[in-house]
Amino acid sequence: MSMVGLRRVVEPAGVLPQAAWRLDASPEIGPDETRIRVRRLNLDAASYRQLAEKHANNGDAIRAEVLDIVRTRGKMHNPVTGSGGMLIGVVEEVGPESPLAVKPGDLVATLVSLTLTPLAITDGLAGWDGLSEQVPAEGTAILFGRSIVGVLPDDLPPELALAVYDVCGAPALTDRIVRKYPDNPTVAVLGGAGKSGSLTLAAARRAGARTVAVVVNEKERDALLKAGLADHVAIADARDPVAVAEAVGEPADVTVVCVDVPGCEHGAILATANGGTVIFFSMATSFPAAALGAEGLAADVTMLIGNGYVPGHAEFAVDLLRQVPAVRALFEARIAAD
Amino acid sequence: MSMVGLRRVVEPAGVLPQAAWRLDASPEIGPDETRIRVRRLNLDAASYRQLAEKHANNGDAIRAEVLDIVRTRGKMHNPVTGSGGMLIGVVEEVGPESPLAVKPGDLVATLVSLTLTPLAITDGLAGWDGLSEQVPAEGTAILFGRSIVGVLPDDLPPELALAVYDVCGAPALTDRIVRKYPDNPTVAVLGGAGKSGSLTLAAARRAGARTVAVVVNEKERDALLKAGLADHVAIADARDPVAVAEAVGEPADVTVVCVDVPGCEHGAILATANGGTVIFFSMATSFPAAALGAEGLAADVTMLIGNGYVPGHAEFAVDLLRQVPAVRALFEARIAAD
Repeated sequence: MSMVGLRRVVEPAGVLPQAAWRLDASPEIGPDETRIRVRRLNLDAASYRQLAEKHANNGDAIRAEVLDIVRTRGKMHNPVTGSGGMLIGVVEEVGPESPLAVKPGDLVATLVSLTLTPLAITDGLAGWDGLSEQVPAEGTAILFGRSIVGVLPDDLPPELALAVYDVCGAPALTDRIVRKYPDNPTVAVLGGAGKSGSLTLAAARRAGARTVAVVVNEKERDALLKAGLADHVAIADARDPVAVAEAVGEPADVTVVCVDVPGCEHGAILATANGGTVIFFSMATSFPAAALGAEGLAADVTMLIGNGYVPGHAEFAVDLLRQVPAVRALFEARIAAD
Repeated sequence: MSMVGLRRVVEPAGVLPQAAWRLDASPEIGPDETRIRVRRLNLDAASYRQLAEKHANNGDAIRAEVLDIVRTRGKMHNPVTGSGGMLIGVVEEVGPESPLAVKPGDLVATLVSLTLTPLAITDGLAGWDGLSEQVPAEGTAILFGRSIVGVLPDDLPPELALAVYDVCGAPALTDRIVRKYPDNPTVAVLGGAGKSGSLTLAAARRAGARTVAVVVNEKERDALLKAGLADHVAIADARDPVAVAEAVGEPADVTVVCVDVPGCEHGAILATANGGTVIFFSMATSFPAAALGAEGLAADVTMLIGNGYVPGHAEFAVDLLRQVPAVRALFEARIAAD
């Protein structure tokens, strides 16, 4: 039980680090812990969007609030969205009882959320303009014994690997679910042009599915048509249930929500066939809206909370990126635009 | 598409009735609608608990707020918890295009949430003291074409049938999931002594599972031991993840959360074996806490949003109540205590 980081919880007592209001982020490690010298944070999309909207894209104000959150909570855990992100850095010290397969000097990405990772920032985020999810940072982070960490691959730029790792749960879980539907299922992806969306489309197709993407505007539609990841691409506001259902057409066997805005639950349910599955991968998902929405629509659909962990998920996603040049191109374009 | 009640949405435009801030609850029905003469509301447990705590069990204040919510929103949709409940009443008028299998004079329970049911109260809830989830009420409610409604069985008191219908999604979905684990799986139920909890235990056992119940105190433990619904009963605070995991012991194949308080996600995940399933049936479930908690624990568990609709769920639950006298006794004791 000590492996889950209980000793780092300051308040309230008795909860796990993710549920804690405040963690002890001091750099001294316990016997099962690992210390990382931080190089870069990658903020969760929903979290960054909330901060950017709150501060009207004022970079200084966004940076100040991120620093304040980390100082107050001992972790980058956005109190409004409940989400965090991940980081890359270099392994500095590994406790003698840690089961993690890393050694000092390894360049790694943490694959557990920043919402449970003790984090101390030492440079005031001086190298960040506050205008992007990718945050150059100096400081220390702590990994517990029961954790997930990926050594960055040699053949990919760190920013690219980090962006892939950040969303690697979605393609792996989609693959697992799609393979339960044997007869050429249809998979609809809301937000198909984004990072998790494009990887999910590629995973669904490789698993044998016909793929439908719903995107928000013509620019995303054109980019996705050019990439060729979806058999059909339609434009709709994911928060408009009737528009989403019409965009998808014949109800999908599996619908994956990769849109980081609130209010996408009902469209996803309406667009899914009876006996189908909805996988929610957006941290903006409302549990009651999904549960009561399906009931209210008399929709016999299985609704999954997108678990960010599936064994082998990081390698699975990196492998997809290597094998599908169109996915890599979309990621590189997104990173360049950041 | 008209069958889902779009014409009743006043604001914001374009969303489904459950997501709407305000519905038009006027009693005139459209061609696919059905009007119910309301007799009794059954408030969702999480909703009633929030109101009771806010008003320190002051019945007059609780009643006033329920009336205010219904008047303001055109439905009993608690804006804090996002949950509602259900109602019983008598069918008054059925539109010519309604597909529902009811006729005027039928005594029915609505099996869709009050959060999407247009509701007008006409008696000021004069017959309710504000101190119970069961609310005698006069007024009208509207069902859409795509809805779920159950005619009340002749052999059960209406209050008993309503209490069963209110939680009938949990045992039916649990039955479906448990049958996917062939080798005498273990099912843990957090909140096993409650209404949904006791029905879920009975369903799990009938589906072939060994059952473990986690309850909050000795009184509930003794009641459940007497009822004999669980092979093992342990006391733990469901919000304390370490205590829950220790109470369950050997990790469960399926864990069902039937506790209507926030903060039960991590205990449920910790108590579940790799490859297992967690079914969240509490409206107090936090989507990010579940998603990030499983990731943070490197837990390969499937997490389901408890869909309140499974075909045949009402008949399934009433059948369990008829066949398992101990479940019926627990329900009758709960109703008597209300």
